[in-house]
Amino acid sequence: MMLDNPSTKYRPFVAVDLPDRQWPSRRIEAPPQWCAVDLRDGNQALIDPMDLERKQRFFDLLVKIGFKQIEVGFPSASQTDFDFVRALIDNDKVPDDVHIQVLTQARPHLIDRTFEALKGVKNAIVHVYNATDPVFRRVVFNVNQAECIQIAVDATTRIREHMVAAPETHWTFQYSPELFSTTEMDFAVEIVDAVEATYGGSVDKPMIVNLPATVECATPNNYADQVEWFCRHVAHRDHLIVSVHPHNDRGTGVAAAELAVMAGADRVEGCLFGNGERTGNVDIVTLAMNLYTQGVHPGLDFSNITPIMREVEYCNQLPVHPRHPYVGDLVFTAFSGSHQDAIKKGMAARRENPDGVWEVPYLPIDPLDVGRSYEAVIRVNSQSGKGGISYLLEQEHGIELPRRLSIEFSQVVQEVADRLGKEITSEMIYQAFVDEYLEQREPFALISHRMSSEPDSPTVTLEATIAEHGARRTIQGQGNGPLAAFIKALAAEGHDVEIIDYHEHSRGQGADAEAIAYVEVRVGGEAVFGVGTDESITSASIKGVMSAINRKLSTEAPAANVTAETLA
Amino acid sequence: MMLDNPSTKYRPFVAVDLPDRQWPSRRIEAPPQWCAVDLRDGNQALIDPMDLERKQRFFDLLVKIGFKQIEVGFPSASQTDFDFVRALIDNDKVPDDVHIQVLTQARPHLIDRTFEALKGVKNAIVHVYNATDPVFRRVVFNVNQAECIQIAVDATTRIREHMVAAPETHWTFQYSPELFSTTEMDFAVEIVDAVEATYGGSVDKPMIVNLPATVECATPNNYADQVEWFCRHVAHRDHLIVSVHPHNDRGTGVAAAELAVMAGADRVEGCLFGNGERTGNVDIVTLAMNLYTQGVHPGLDFSNITPIMREVEYCNQLPVHPRHPYVGDLVFTAFSGSHQDAIKKGMAARRENPDGVWEVPYLPIDPLDVGRSYEAVIRVNSQSGKGGISYLLEQEHGIELPRRLSIEFSQVVQEVADRLGKEITSEMIYQAFVDEYLEQREPFALISHRMSSEPDSPTVTLEATIAEHGARRTIQGQGNGPLAAFIKALAAEGHDVEIIDYHEHSRGQGADAEAIAYVEVRVGGEAVFGVGTDESITSASIKGVMSAINRKLSTEAPAANVTAETLA
Repeated sequence: MMLDNPSTKYRPFVAVDLPDRQWPSRRIEAPPQWCAVDLRDGNQALIDPMDLERKQRFFDLLVKIGFKQIEVGFPSASQTDFDFVRALIDNDKVPDDVHIQVLTQARPHLIDRTFEALKGVKNAIVHVYNATDPVFRRVVFNVNQAECIQIAVDATTRIREHMVAAPETHWTFQYSPELFSTTEMDFAVEIVDAVEATYGGSVDKPMIVNLPATVECATPNNYADQVEWFCRHVAHRDHLIVSVHPHNDRGTGVAAAELAVMAGADRVEGCLFGNGERTGNVDIVTLAMNLYTQGVHPGLDFSNITPIMREVEYCNQLPVHPRHPYVGDLVFTAFSGSHQDAIKKGMAARRENPDGVWEVPYLPIDPLDVGRSYEAVIRVNSQSGKGGISYLLEQEHGIELPRRLSIEFSQVVQEVADRLGKEITSEMIYQAFVDEYLEQREPFALISHRMSSEPDSPTVTLEATIAEHGARRTIQGQGNGPLAAFIKALAAEGHDVEIIDYHEHSRGQGADAEAIAYVEVRVGGEAVFGVGTDESITSASIKGVMSAINRKLSTEAPAANVTAETLA
Repeated sequence: MMLDNPSTKYRPFVAVDLPDRQWPSRRIEAPPQWCAVDLRDGNQALIDPMDLERKQRFFDLLVKIGFKQIEVGFPSASQTDFDFVRALIDNDKVPDDVHIQVLTQARPHLIDRTFEALKGVKNAIVHVYNATDPVFRRVVFNVNQAECIQIAVDATTRIREHMVAAPETHWTFQYSPELFSTTEMDFAVEIVDAVEATYGGSVDKPMIVNLPATVECATPNNYADQVEWFCRHVAHRDHLIVSVHPHNDRGTGVAAAELAVMAGADRVEGCLFGNGERTGNVDIVTLAMNLYTQGVHPGLDFSNITPIMREVEYCNQLPVHPRHPYVGDLVFTAFSGSHQDAIKKGMAARRENPDGVWEVPYLPIDPLDVGRSYEAVIRVNSQSGKGGISYLLEQEHGIELPRRLSIEFSQVVQEVADRLGKEITSEMIYQAFVDEYLEQREPFALISHRMSSEPDSPTVTLEATIAEHGARRTIQGQGNGPLAAFIKALAAEGHDVEIIDYHEHSRGQGADAEAIAYVEVRVGGEAVFGVGTDESITSASIKGVMSAINRKLSTEAPAANVTAETLA
């Protein structure tokens, strides 16, 4: 229950006193160093953390995009992470120009274990942190400032020893005063100075100091003030690569990162599409593309952004929102007539001056630059208040397409749209669905069927009268259920059909209710969907199988020439 | 395809020259005026625009939250919007302290139609705009600056005449120089001054000047600079309520709004959870809660935020992301052991000092303040790399819960968690599902069934042998399919059961495949789910119905005392 007066419970953030701040007059004219922390910070916040296969896929994706610094895990805390780091190194999966980064707490045995994980690596960043925030010092760890500094210094000493002992690796040292943004600024500088003195940073061999806004707690200008203040007050700014690590609790993580880079940060840690604890880490995709639209190449390749999104969705098992900048399904759309008209005029002007500056109304970026297309800009029948193929079928026709079928069917609709060259209406979409799936009655059609089963026996006997090019015959099979019996009946005829996936649900209620079955079958080595409807759940599923077979046959050859033998 | 050098195609934003800007040293200490534009800007960007029912529900929600200014539509452009505005007024749906706002283009017949829509309203804001951005002037409308000003001035004159002619309404006038943020600043001031002079604003009767970042095109500090510059240069700042309308194309809409308010804006237009064109309008929920966590009450009530999210998801038919600030499913979670430990210590410290300032690590707000709970903080079995009830059932057991069932089942799991008082494992969740749905075999159990049907007849006859408290008997029914026949067989026994919803799908493939059916039935006036599995799709669905009936009976009375008559 929200308080009438929250000022007793919540404290406003402590502002940095920096009246002569310089960052608001700066702009970002070169990309920062990027470090992707998806495999560590992102992964630790997943409902279902990545297994080795997903981690490897994500790592390969990050390399392909162009990341040169990738935090790959917390090997001293997780056996999966340890194994993953070892597998990367032992299987030589890390390109020579990529630095893998690992996180460790500032505890001796965890540091030792971390170096065990890294043994033999070519380039590595060892990232150690301890909590410097006053609430953490008091409530969680019960340490004073001196003890807090000692923890960081001791860890730095031990890490340095490990590094010296393994000169075959190119090491980089990284320290994070944890919850920098809620730490007293002078104390943050004091502990970083102590760590840097212990490590012995230099202009030639700088260390990374990472300044996390682990929990976002202020308007983003204050984070920029903190970064600028820190850079001005730290003893050896030129011995440091100053890194920022913003989270997004107030929805301003992207802004915080941008303003912090203006304020002097050299490096940004974040995740693709903003995954991470709670509200997420800062989204590196948005940061990179924001730079790109200002004419600055980010050094990362998002030229085919949709497959990147799909891969990340697979690895994280979390959706990217349809309104996510630069990638969401809806971000290159225009629904209103006036927007569509303005875009049309802007596109026409651009065709006359294709090498000019991009200035198409309502489109901050050319969709082609990220592998999207102008065709996607105007959605199916947006103006008449309809649109969204799956949504429309569900809302208007009670058809809930399984995801894979929905993808398959969107291509069918796209073909119809391309063929007709005009706006697709709701009715046309439904008709396309009917034509493509429900009206597939050649060569095979179900005329009728009868089932019988005996008590205490799971076996169903099914006799189906089917027509093949209009000629009727009866087939028969037995199985554990009607669908299995029908597959057996087909098999007895020499048709090798296997059920891959089956969904069925009711449409409507009461007297009008019927069942609709979506069946994905493997036939002739290929997966194909079919859909059937009937008042009977059994008949609907049998019709679904026949729809799939008919669709398979119709793509192979003109229906009139196909015989049952084609199936075998 | 991203260009190697985007600087030829993309132009960096034009920065405002304001070296003595004041906003970076300010903070927000009182809420701005809020105007919700969900029913207009949000609605026009929906795949499926709201019908009258959804519009009314959304309007009622906004009123309940506490909005006093609500943009309800574009009545001159849309008959639905016109009808909605009339219905609001004619049915007296607008509270006396709420101002409805409508948008119109600066064209005479549209202005006339707008006032027709508003006839008889108590309080209204008439919001007129025209495009002042140079690309729009040149490419879309082909007008020079003088012509552009004339359009705005003419519209203002006509609106003023309408207002004077209808003194029974409390009118407020609002003007937007469209795409303010990409308009030359001096021209934006010039056109607003001309409009304000025409309208005749005053300190007592200020007009609203709204400064849209229709497409977000710069880092958010530049928008703040623009707003501060505008406020300093406009002729009669005290005749104006300065409003901002940020979009989110660069992912910094929330920051832009916050910095703009620091720069002098009095009012913010936005949408709940950031719906709107492309990447959305600024999210008013985040803005409001950001204020709240700084000890400033926003004047809006999000004390029970989850039902608000659900209602908005229903009206917009778009999801809110699981990482959305303050409301997403994952934002009050902690997965890592160190986070959980810190939260636990912070909670313990708070119990000792319940009236102190909120300072629980990793939780920027007390979840209770928005109607969320501490129980949600630590997710089911997060540590062992599992979690997410529905996801887990799908990944590990191939069980794809329909959404409503998934909600119902999460409560079952919560009860188990509360009862056992320990972390729930993956196995415990599956067992809870089995116990709750699949093992519901009392009082009724299916022993066997047989079906028969005749060719060319849709009718299926089903004979089912069931046990009631172990005593067997056979029931029989006919219907259009086996499920319908079974319902008829139950009806013949006096059990009035109606199918509300039915989903069925395959689990596994090949020899191990079986079907799982989720059936929602209405029995005894109440909706209840049941689940059945079987190799036969028919048996699975029948078992699903029996599971539902058994569950209903088991909640009514101890199973042993229940007889079939209870169902009637």
